[in-house]
Amino acid sequence: MGEHTVASFDEELGQISKLVRDMGDLAGSMVESSTKALLKSDNGLAQRVVSDDAIMDARQRELDNRAITLIAKRQPMAQDLRAVIGAIRMAGDFERIGDLAKNIAKRVGAVGQSGTPREFSHSIDAMAQLVLVQVDGVIEKYAAADPQGLAQLRADDERIDVKYTSVFRELLTYMMEDPRNITPCTHLLFCAKNLERIGDHVTNIAENAYYVLTGEQLPPNRPKFDETAAAVPAA
Amino acid sequence: MGEHTVASFDEELGQISKLVRDMGDLAGSMVESSTKALLKSDNGLAQRVVSDDAIMDARQRELDNRAITLIAKRQPMAQDLRAVIGAIRMAGDFERIGDLAKNIAKRVGAVGQSGTPREFSHSIDAMAQLVLVQVDGVIEKYAAADPQGLAQLRADDERIDVKYTSVFRELLTYMMEDPRNITPCTHLLFCAKNLERIGDHVTNIAENAYYVLTGEQLPPNRPKFDETAAAVPAA
Repeated sequence: MGEHTVASFDEELGQISKLVRDMGDLAGSMVESSTKALLKSDNGLAQRVVSDDAIMDARQRELDNRAITLIAKRQPMAQDLRAVIGAIRMAGDFERIGDLAKNIAKRVGAVGQSGTPREFSHSIDAMAQLVLVQVDGVIEKYAAADPQGLAQLRADDERIDVKYTSVFRELLTYMMEDPRNITPCTHLLFCAKNLERIGDHVTNIAENAYYVLTGEQLPPNRPKFDETAAAVPAA
Repeated sequence: MGEHTVASFDEELGQISKLVRDMGDLAGSMVESSTKALLKSDNGLAQRVVSDDAIMDARQRELDNRAITLIAKRQPMAQDLRAVIGAIRMAGDFERIGDLAKNIAKRVGAVGQSGTPREFSHSIDAMAQLVLVQVDGVIEKYAAADPQGLAQLRADDERIDVKYTSVFRELLTYMMEDPRNITPCTHLLFCAKNLERIGDHVTNIAENAYYVLTGEQLPPNRPKFDETAAAVPAA
C-alpha cells in the first residue's frame, strides 16, 4: 500500500472525525436552545431546535455512508477500524441527544400554555447547565485527544443524576400542592428526564472516544442509576 | 479466496445473526416480564428483569467484538459488510430495549408502595401488548427474511403512539382527581413513555433489518410523533 493511499485514508478519517465534532457542536447548541426556549416560553427558538434536528439526522446519514464506504474501500485494520466504528457510535449518540433536545423543544408549547411556573425553572436551569458542560466537554476532550479528561467527564455524570433526583422530587411536591401544576410539571418531569438521558449519551460518547483514542475500554463499573425509579416526593 | 474461507465468513455471520435473534428473544421476554411485574407488583419478577439486563449487555459486547473481528479479519465488501454493520445496529437497539424494560422493572417498588391503582393498569396493559407484538414480530420477520413484513411492522408503530397519547391523558386526569394518585401515576407515565420508546427502537430495528435483507432503505417519511409533547389532560 503506497504513501498516497495511506494519506487518503487519514484524510477520509479526518473528514469523518470532523463530522463527529460538527454533530457534537450542533448537539450542544440544540441542548442550550431547547432549555432556553423552555424556560423563556420561546416558541420561535423551540421551532429552530426542531429544524436543527433534521440537519443532525442528515449529518448522521452522511457520516454513516462515509464510514461504511471507507471500511469497504480501504479495509482498515485494528486501530483504524476501531476509529471508524467509534465514529459511527459517537454519531449515533449525538443523534439521540438531538432527538431528546427536540423532544424538550416540542414541550415548550404545552408547558407555556398552562403558564410556565417560574419558581420551578431554577432547578431545571441548573440541571441543564450541568448537562451542557458535559456535552461541550466531551467534544473538546475528544478533539484534544485527552483520555484522562474523558474518564473524568464520565465520572462527572453522577452530578447530573443527583440533580435529577432532586428536581424529580421537587416537581412531584409542586404537583401535590396544586392540581393546576400537574400538567406543566409533568412536561417538566419529562424534560428533566431527557436532560438526564442526554447525560447518559455523553457518558457513552466519552467511553467510545476513550476507546478510539487508547484502544482500551474504560472499566465498566460506573454506578449507573436513575434514583427516581424508586422516588417518592420530597417531604 | 477459497471455498473454505467463504464458508467460514457465512458461518461467522450466521453466529452473529444468531446472537441478534437471541438478543431479540431476551428483549421480548424482558418487556413481557417488566410489564407483568408492574401490573402485579411482583418485585421478584422485577428483580429478574434487572439481572436479565446484565445478560443483554454481555451479549451485545460479545456481538460487537465478533462483528469487529469479522470485519477486520475477512474485510467483507458491500452486501456482507452491510449485514455486519446492520447486526451491530440491531444489537444496539435491542440493548436499549433491555434498558427501558429494566427502567420499568425498577419502578415496580415505587408504584407498588404507593398502592398500585388497579383501574389504571388496563390501559398500560393494552399498550404493553401492542409493544410486545411488535418486539416479537420484528425478530420473527427478520429470521424469516420478510422485508414486506418489516415495512408493515414499521407502519404499525403508529398504533402504539396513538395508544400512548390516550394513556398519557388518562393518567394526567387521574392525577388531577386525587393528589394521592400523583406519585404512582408519574411512575406509570414514565413506564408508558418507555413502552412508546421501545416501539421506536423496534422501528429502527425493522429499518435496519430491511436494509440488511434488501440493500435498500425504507423511505424515511414515516410520520414520527409523540403527540403528548403538546398534550393537556383528557376533558
